[in-house]
Amino acid sequence: MYTVCVRDHMMIAHSFSGAVFGPAQQLHGATYVVDVEFRRPELDENGIVVDIGLAATALHEVLAALNYRNLDAHTEFSGQNTTTEFLARAIFERLAQAIREGRLGPSAAAITTLRVTLHESHVAWAAFEGGISAQ
Amino acid sequence: MYTVCVRDHMMIAHSFSGAVFGPAQQLHGATYVVDVEFRRPELDENGIVVDIGLAATALHEVLAALNYRNLDAHTEFSGQNTTTEFLARAIFERLAQAIREGRLGPSAAAITTLRVTLHESHVAWAAFEGGISAQ
Amino acid sequence: MYTVCVRDHMMIAHSFSGAVFGPAQQLHGATYVVDVEFRRPELDENGIVVDIGLAATALHEVLAALNYRNLDAHTEFSGQNTTTEFLARAIFERLAQAIREGRLGPSAAAITTLRVTLHESHVAWAAFEGGISAQ
Amino acid sequence: MYTVCVRDHMMIAHSFSGAVFGPAQQLHGATYVVDVEFRRPELDENGIVVDIGLAATALHEVLAALNYRNLDAHTEFSGQNTTTEFLARAIFERLAQAIREGRLGPSAAAITTLRVTLHESHVAWAAFEGGISAQ
Amino acid sequence: MYTVCVRDHMMIAHSFSGAVFGPAQQLHGATYVVDVEFRRPELDENGIVVDIGLAATALHEVLAALNYRNLDAHTEFSGQNTTTEFLARAIFERLAQAIREGRLGPSAAAITTLRVTLHESHVAWAAFEGGISAQ
Amino acid sequence: MYTVCVRDHMMIAHSFSGAVFGPAQQLHGATYVVDVEFRRPELDENGIVVDIGLAATALHEVLAALNYRNLDAHTEFSGQNTTTEFLARAIFERLAQAIREGRLGPSAAAITTLRVTLHESHVAWAAFEGGISAQ
Repeated sequence: MYTVCVRDHMMIAHSFSGAVFGPAQQLHGATYVVDVEFRRPELDENGIVVDIGLAATALHEVLAALNYRNLDAHTEFSGQNTTTEFLARAIFERLAQAIREGRLGPSAAAITTLRVTLHESHVAWAAFEGGISAQ
Repeated sequence: MYTVCVRDHMMIAHSFSGAVFGPAQQLHGATYVVDVEFRRPELDENGIVVDIGLAATALHEVLAALNYRNLDAHTEFSGQNTTTEFLARAIFERLAQAIREGRLGPSAAAITTLRVTLHESHVAWAAFEGGISAQ
Repeated sequence: MYTVCVRDHMMIAHSFSGAVFGPAQQLHGATYVVDVEFRRPELDENGIVVDIGLAATALHEVLAALNYRNLDAHTEFSGQNTTTEFLARAIFERLAQAIREGRLGPSAAAITTLRVTLHESHVAWAAFEGGISAQ
Repeated sequence: MYTVCVRDHMMIAHSFSGAVFGPAQQLHGATYVVDVEFRRPELDENGIVVDIGLAATALHEVLAALNYRNLDAHTEFSGQNTTTEFLARAIFERLAQAIREGRLGPSAAAITTLRVTLHESHVAWAAFEGGISAQ
Repeated sequence: MYTVCVRDHMMIAHSFSGAVFGPAQQLHGATYVVDVEFRRPELDENGIVVDIGLAATALHEVLAALNYRNLDAHTEFSGQNTTTEFLARAIFERLAQAIREGRLGPSAAAITTLRVTLHESHVAWAAFEGGISAQ
Repeated sequence: MYTVCVRDHMMIAHSFSGAVFGPAQQLHGATYVVDVEFRRPELDENGIVVDIGLAATALHEVLAALNYRNLDAHTEFSGQNTTTEFLARAIFERLAQAIREGRLGPSAAAITTLRVTLHESHVAWAAFEGGISAQ
């Protein structure tokens, strides 16, 4: 299995609901350094997993819709805790959709799985991994 | 599949038996930067994989029992080479036990696998990964 | 010259005023991984620059007063952009005060300079460095 | 499952064919920081996954055959784009062969899978992972 | 003293002349992860060292003139070994010129020193640091 | 000012004397990832700060004399706490001596300062920096 990974980041504000979150129930924020891994069993005719330029652009666009925002005011996430693991899934879904729509090029149709990792500090990160056809 | 990872470290002395270890047969030591990944297929009702505060505390307690010690004098490891990969398994077993005992909270019962990685330098690391019910 | 550095982090929300900040004028947030370097020309009688336990505790306390907060609502910073470089100076001042008050132990009186670095992402950081008697 | 990883690097020149590569069609170069993960389900009688000295030597030898070279002039890669993912596979095959030939010691025969990761910058990497008997 | 640092990278081919370089006399290449530190004694009225957007753009433009190229064919470097330390100085000069030309904004005129660091692998880097008025 | 840095590591056991060290008074150990920075105001005729091959070899030899050892049994350090900052100075002295003896080549005579940094974990490091003629 081949993997290619690209990295970008976003800086957001949010708060959490639930005693389990302790002081993180207050409005605070995070830098998320985001790694996206694209996987497929064979390379395409150019010898690549994905057009890394298109991949980086797609990731940047997905993050731009969240970057420099207060996620508590983001209607799509209404009523949900935008935890690191939740956001990893949310970014996964947007990138899977971009692949299905052909925005990473026709060769990207052979990508079988994605893994999205959000590094929130030097001591914690979270990830979501799934098949590309997952909805 | 969702993953959450927390990081801590310990600083220990030990020596190894067997010609394969060369100069590491002498008493020496290591800093192990320890990453523990918790995995489960769905998030709990708070939108999390694990209570990250409880997870960090459990890891810190497991490492505290080894930290600042000479593992050659640790009776539990008598007759065994406390290699990086061996220690990854030992820490895995202690954390799996903590989960089974409910010390990471009731929601942690849904965690299916753990991966423990010990970074021993900028050029080497080892890991053990297994199902949570493994003994 | 000897240096000892300790690392911790904080996760805050804030917004900036001024066209130069572009989208960062919106409420957003950041994880700051904070490195504090303590410097002195000679070691003390124990062979150390600073009691690293006291140093880590002092840093943690300084960060705890800001961590998990919206800095826009922090009265001490009223009317100021809490940029990364500004916060580096703010943390520097609190730690310099802690040293002058003896909270890092009597030997820490020989520390001559501090450097505080805040890493805000994998591609940007800021720092403030100054003499310990600076007000 | 146990994993041990060793790291080394190489510095090469190359160019790519195909419009998808944009400016990378020009002769340029890369530093590849190479991580090789060795995996097996049980440790050997010494408590290790692999003789880490032999593993590091085998990796260094594999990289030495490519290091400080223009891969466009490497006949073995004639007609192929030596992308990061392609090179991950090429290094995988050479290390799998080294294991099958016994160059990592007899105990290494129990290694079941290898993963080779090439870090090409702070924002991109690629990997190939496969079973050790794969040709 | 305040510092702000931004990071980018470039991927180039080159060769060196001189027995001291050993196998690096052959055509090979490197990824340089480039950190640029901007320093000044006081913040401007916005609370910043430099407009980080303009700084990142200026760095990207400087690197774009070298990225994906064979430096042996770069006439400006004719007759010189484009070592990591030499390139650090070359990038320093281009950024100092950008500041003097006002391309980082009027406030950047107060920047007193620059430091440019090129990371060439996980085990080696080089830097050049100088005053901004240096030619 | 130009800087070139090389990295290596060592793994040692030791213990400390003095209540300030708490549990580190017990026999324990550390991995030290060691960075050595060589500085000079002008490059030599080859365009380099130092022959990086000789620099890496000299560092490796200095570390080899300490690596895989219990520093408590090292007579040269008798009666001293081998703290991270103390060891940074000890390694500095050995490398300064190597330069003065010409072991880094004749061009290395122009090196004016050295900085030795020992990373002991992901959250702590220490350094010593001084002029090359310092005894």
